[in-house]
Amino acid sequence: MKTQTRRTDDVRVAVSTVIFTLRRIGDTSQVALPLVRRTRDPFEGLWALPGGWLGIDENLEAAASRTLAETTGIEPSYLEQLYAFGDVGRSTSRVVSIVYWALVRQDDAPAAPENTAWFDATALPLLAFDHNQIVDYALWRLRNKVGYSRIAHGFLPDEFTLADLREVYEAILGRRLDPPNFRRQVESSGTLIPTPSFRTGNHRPARLYRYNHDVELADRGPLPA
Amino acid sequence: MKTQTRRTDDVRVAVSTVIFTLRRIGDTSQVALPLVRRTRDPFEGLWALPGGWLGIDENLEAAASRTLAETTGIEPSYLEQLYAFGDVGRSTSRVVSIVYWALVRQDDAPAAPENTAWFDATALPLLAFDHNQIVDYALWRLRNKVGYSRIAHGFLPDEFTLADLREVYEAILGRRLDPPNFRRQVESSGTLIPTPSFRTGNHRPARLYRYNHDVELADRGPLPA
Repeated sequence: MKTQTRRTDDVRVAVSTVIFTLRRIGDTSQVALPLVRRTRDPFEGLWALPGGWLGIDENLEAAASRTLAETTGIEPSYLEQLYAFGDVGRSTSRVVSIVYWALVRQDDAPAAPENTAWFDATALPLLAFDHNQIVDYALWRLRNKVGYSRIAHGFLPDEFTLADLREVYEAILGRRLDPPNFRRQVESSGTLIPTPSFRTGNHRPARLYRYNHDVELADRGPLPA
Repeated sequence: MKTQTRRTDDVRVAVSTVIFTLRRIGDTSQVALPLVRRTRDPFEGLWALPGGWLGIDENLEAAASRTLAETTGIEPSYLEQLYAFGDVGRSTSRVVSIVYWALVRQDDAPAAPENTAWFDATALPLLAFDHNQIVDYALWRLRNKVGYSRIAHGFLPDEFTLADLREVYEAILGRRLDPPNFRRQVESSGTLIPTPSFRTGNHRPARLYRYNHDVELADRGPLPA
């Protein structure tokens, strides 16, 4: 295996993170993510996902958290591994990127530091490396997962109205949902617990709900948390 | 980033593959996978998942296919990326393993070459590295996925009876399923197309079904196939 080993020494491992949040634009919300402007080659000047090299003494998720905090100041409550991207030619040297993703509530998203900005996830400029493809895949996973998991909770405060929840689904799926049907589906799913509280305001009072916290936001299976 | 870069050069990338098949034991089926006995340190003599080092000029899935064929002779019709395992201390050197998984029909599984054997996925010996954890995670994904995808098809010939399909589900889920309920659920799901053919034998003739091939076995989303 000597040959293989020598060749493999030329492969480097990086971590990157796709952090989605919901951004309110007018009366709708859109899925947004932070990008970092590259200050060195390759792709100097282009926007890229926050990330960096894996440290020899770091676990993968720890490296993702560290590089995310270093570049954006964001410290999400959880990260989930998305996919490993390792095509030959995705960078000027051979780099395998282990990509993590997470959701943050907009309130928890700090002001963007220098060289960092938030972008509409569905209308990105040309990004460095294969990062457009990575974001498209993360969006597909988000839309896919919202169908069979509690992932929408990642965008919501502990208590929310059915209209809040519908708005999250509409932003993720990119289409309007029929309010009565949505209410029926959610109520019959039994995943929400009604609270005694109501939100009052210009509209008629709306009941506040919360998720059943016995259910994990992201079921990581038997992987160490 | 000089420091980071230097440290990252000490991380090596390997690929491993979990190949599940269904093995008939008496009147039930069990999920089985091939393992390769290690002939060198670390963990010389222990069984491990088929795999090897990533070549500098290979894409990840190509490396998984190559190392799988080299060690087991198996060439599955598709591989799906499972997860990247990279904990510090999972090997004597720092190795990040990109793990792929696939299903093969037992008829397509070649005779095990030297140093390779098939094991019951739910009753494994102590494996090299963190491979017990990797197989447990792959089993969890298989059980999880059978609920919302056509993955059972990966174990079946093109035409099969509802009893064949139920047996696959029972093997994957590790429990018996009620035949009438199973029939109702499958028929109402509309994922099967009845053929004009029946299987005859000791029992009364059983209708043969096939999957709707408009539906992909594994939806890879926007990733390149």
